[in-house]
Amino acid sequence: MNIDQKLWRTIWLCEDRKSVGVIDQSKLPHEFSIKILRSCEDVYVAIKDMVVRGAPLIGVAGAYGLMLAVQKDSREVSIHKAYEKLNSSRPTAINLNFCLNRLKEKVLSVNIDQRVEVAINEAVRITEEDVSMCQLIGKYGFDLFKQIAASSQNKENAYELQVLTHCNAGWLATVDWGTALSPIYKWHREGLGIHVWVDETRPRNQGSSLTAYELAGEGIPHTVIVDNAGGYLMKKGMVDLVIVGADRITASGDVCNKIGTYLKALAAKDNNIPFYVALPCSSIDWDIVDSDLIPIEIRSEDEVASITGRSFSGNHPNRLEKVRLINENSNSFNPGFDITPSRLISGLITDRGIVRADEKSLKNLLVSIKNDLIE
Amino acid sequence: MNIDQKLWRTIWLCEDRKSVGVIDQSKLPHEFSIKILRSCEDVYVAIKDMVVRGAPLIGVAGAYGLMLAVQKDSREVSIHKAYEKLNSSRPTAINLNFCLNRLKEKVLSVNIDQRVEVAINEAVRITEEDVSMCQLIGKYGFDLFKQIAASSQNKENAYELQVLTHCNAGWLATVDWGTALSPIYKWHREGLGIHVWVDETRPRNQGSSLTAYELAGEGIPHTVIVDNAGGYLMKKGMVDLVIVGADRITASGDVCNKIGTYLKALAAKDNNIPFYVALPCSSIDWDIVDSDLIPIEIRSEDEVASITGRSFSGNHPNRLEKVRLINENSNSFNPGFDITPSRLISGLITDRGIVRADEKSLKNLLVSIKNDLIE
Repeated sequence: MNIDQKLWRTIWLCEDRKSVGVIDQSKLPHEFSIKILRSCEDVYVAIKDMVVRGAPLIGVAGAYGLMLAVQKDSREVSIHKAYEKLNSSRPTAINLNFCLNRLKEKVLSVNIDQRVEVAINEAVRITEEDVSMCQLIGKYGFDLFKQIAASSQNKENAYELQVLTHCNAGWLATVDWGTALSPIYKWHREGLGIHVWVDETRPRNQGSSLTAYELAGEGIPHTVIVDNAGGYLMKKGMVDLVIVGADRITASGDVCNKIGTYLKALAAKDNNIPFYVALPCSSIDWDIVDSDLIPIEIRSEDEVASITGRSFSGNHPNRLEKVRLINENSNSFNPGFDITPSRLISGLITDRGIVRADEKSLKNLLVSIKNDLIE
Repeated sequence: MNIDQKLWRTIWLCEDRKSVGVIDQSKLPHEFSIKILRSCEDVYVAIKDMVVRGAPLIGVAGAYGLMLAVQKDSREVSIHKAYEKLNSSRPTAINLNFCLNRLKEKVLSVNIDQRVEVAINEAVRITEEDVSMCQLIGKYGFDLFKQIAASSQNKENAYELQVLTHCNAGWLATVDWGTALSPIYKWHREGLGIHVWVDETRPRNQGSSLTAYELAGEGIPHTVIVDNAGGYLMKKGMVDLVIVGADRITASGDVCNKIGTYLKALAAKDNNIPFYVALPCSSIDWDIVDSDLIPIEIRSEDEVASITGRSFSGNHPNRLEKVRLINENSNSFNPGFDITPSRLISGLITDRGIVRADEKSLKNLLVSIKNDLIE
């Protein structure tokens, strides 16, 4: 997608095929820079330091990390060691484990002298598949948007469609296109009008710092709001649909996503506004039916107590500065995700089409996935 | 209430009876200081610059401002002029207009040589009445808390009661005690255990900067959370009740309060958790039944795009620093309040007891208020 009128992906294999380029997301939107990762260790640090983030992108980065490890040493024992290290960089990311397993199995299935070539090809294939998956989500989402726009009550709006989104489920969280934002990009590129309400998404502000930045790069009209404002906008008829990504979905259709998603789903339900979740099928956890069993990551208090932004100060304008927001005698608590029950979800936009968020529909989806694998 | 183990009110008449002391709230929680206001103009600026804030406190400050104006010049024409100026300092604050009217009428009902004495006495009376009103809310709320604690399902909690609150409806928003926090202070002073979840309340962060500061001063266990986290906590059984203040209530029981209140009310309803609103009866707008008629203040974009905190920087540690959070190409939108429909509200805790949030109950309340005025 576009940044400053130049097309980018979040991650790419460099021409030497011995290094990997990534956009450094840790300082966005304030500073744009790229980083070249030359070793498994580099990739590990990039994931740890949130230079790359977003579950699908972390998966792809992990695959490249293992590819770089294979280039350095193709022996099985070394590959296992690199695998373990990379796998520990973000323990909750289901995609990371999935991509690492896939690359490792492929590489270990061939002789040692073929492993480098196989690793490169498989990492590139994983990358391209991520792009295709996101494009398919965009296509199915686009058709859905068409239906919603046709039945929208808000005819007085300046835009054909007004969408609200939470957190960042855009191309920066994947290789390209994104999940929840993919239909929005397609809609805009088809020349149709759209306006996006961007939840800032405290505490890490992925909405105001990443989603807004992405949309600005593509020239899509958007407005940042605090997380508190969504209910007001829905009540005022200023939202046609809500669309978010997902970190994990249970086999019964409950959605684990960034903290605060549940509150937006409640407001959408209360105002009869469609609430959709966009995700690749690989985000469905077929083994879990009861969403209470999904472990919720409790993150650092510091994310609530402090924030980093671009300084206004006369002496050092534009310097990035971290400030504390809370008095020293008060603690904070920082759950990273919440569960949105399936009853609040209008549907799931997947790379295999729109699916209802219920156990029966998801079972049918699993059957069709398995059938395709057999064929 | 206590700050650093010393008892304070937010506003007081100085011994010379020609000046008024206030806590400067504009830099809390980072800096504590008091300001002495010596003229009507000083009070006007203090309200404008948010040195004093909170609807009840602004009303009391306005009364003192008019008192200072009367001391300077007791002629009717000057009093009217001062009244107009003060009344313009915060046009939406219903309490400000109420207190100014009351003091003006009282002062103008006597001869010019008695006006200074009458103004002083009336301003002090308004102050003391605010304190009594808040104490009554505390008393009725305390009884309610008792009932809720008795029926609480969360027996494994370390505290007898876990309460969630949004924004600041504490003593800093009034003269003393507060509205939503008043029952919490009483509960704690009675030696009963309580823990408060404090919504940070973006964009102005009145929760993390004022409510947390207040509770820390009183030694009440509390934890700051982002506004996104409340739904998660309620679902996990970590909240026994939600209590908030109100800027205005319609005659049908709909509540206009800080943006985001509606989302918390939805989550409380979805989890069968009591949701109460604490307010003095003077916050009820008897003339409005349809809450869509309440004008919602749209505030500055800058409140969303930027934030001020205490710097971490090595060169100038502890300096207050304003930082921009959003990229320069993105706009924001900042509605200050939302409406929580009466159907989501378990009850209103007023200075005249607990009232159901419906038109019939409020009509009965109005009748009882009118009867008391006649007696």
